[in-house]
Amino acid sequence: MRRGLFVSFEGSEGCGKSTQIRRLSAWLQERGTSCLTTREPGGTAAGDEIRHLLQHAPQGHGLVPEAEMLLFAASRAQLVREVILPALENGQAVLSDRFHDSTTVYQGVARQLPPETVASINSFAIGGCLPDITFLLDMDAKEAFGRLAGRNRPVDRMESEPLEFYQAVREGYLRAAAAEPGRFCVLDAARAEDDLARAIQQKLLERFHGFFTR
Amino acid sequence: MRRGLFVSFEGSEGCGKSTQIRRLSAWLQERGTSCLTTREPGGTAAGDEIRHLLQHAPQGHGLVPEAEMLLFAASRAQLVREVILPALENGQAVLSDRFHDSTTVYQGVARQLPPETVASINSFAIGGCLPDITFLLDMDAKEAFGRLAGRNRPVDRMESEPLEFYQAVREGYLRAAAAEPGRFCVLDAARAEDDLARAIQQKLLERFHGFFTR
Repeated sequence: MRRGLFVSFEGSEGCGKSTQIRRLSAWLQERGTSCLTTREPGGTAAGDEIRHLLQHAPQGHGLVPEAEMLLFAASRAQLVREVILPALENGQAVLSDRFHDSTTVYQGVARQLPPETVASINSFAIGGCLPDITFLLDMDAKEAFGRLAGRNRPVDRMESEPLEFYQAVREGYLRAAAAEPGRFCVLDAARAEDDLARAIQQKLLERFHGFFTR
Repeated sequence: MRRGLFVSFEGSEGCGKSTQIRRLSAWLQERGTSCLTTREPGGTAAGDEIRHLLQHAPQGHGLVPEAEMLLFAASRAQLVREVILPALENGQAVLSDRFHDSTTVYQGVARQLPPETVASINSFAIGGCLPDITFLLDMDAKEAFGRLAGRNRPVDRMESEPLEFYQAVREGYLRAAAAEPGRFCVLDAARAEDDLARAIQQKLLERFHGFFTR
């Protein structure tokens, strides 16, 4: 069976990932491409329970960084095997709101867990299921911080971090992208929404010509 | 501050761990030793949510073995840092119903995940917090299987495995004990309850004389 196309979106909270995923999904479906969107953590019944635990850790004792990382990995291990691999084997396009790069950056860089351990657990969790392309919507840390503050809704655990956390996250993403230029496509999240959507479509058409003309 | 004593209990479901932990805890407290008992997975608020997820995975799609292992590790990472290390630093005895050997055996041996990966994730989760002694209550696989069937209560996910699973678990435990004879103490779970309790007390008095006479 023809293999599908696996696209992940990364970037700070507030960078516009969900909007671009919605637009890309609509565009793919207009072109007749069956498309599945998913999110991290979550995307499966077990993963949604893990997501809830991560975002609303029990009162009193917060989650330690090691447990946090292992929970993200558990959610992803389930998502890959239950949802992503079957969809790809079925020839679908899979659009993921965050994937393993989020762990590299959030847990490895911002929480300062040992990078080799993070890499090895990441690799065990995804079992070789890497995205074909990863769009990093790069955004100034102050801008990301400000956008979230403006959202005017209760913040969850991750969103209540200080500005320095956003700065470490941004730098971590840019380093990850520099290390794998073949997989990453870095786009300026400050660009107009339409402009960004077209850039993403264009990149996919260029890079995965075979997928779109089959 | 004086370091406490960390004791883990391992063995198949039905081997009598909980009974022996209860008895050891009572004995320690009679001797004036402050004692904390905990269980795996669980033992913290976050860990109890993980335990629930592990034992009652959502309908439809079962947990994949990789996610299962990562959830056990997450629960343990939290338990070590939130509960066990502070208690040990406080000079207490900590009695744990299962610890990292359960992951080595259940996920590594019985689920056949790669042993090096299991070892490396185990080691990340516990961060060097190894038990001072581990009592393996060794039991014939058929006997363990039969004891559970006789319990006459709803079985959870792990307890509904076939006999071969119990055999692999028993062999895995015996191999783990043979690899670390300095830490493991293997006892025949078929011995009378009183007899086992006395053997455990005796072993602790012999091996950790300094802890009991301080």
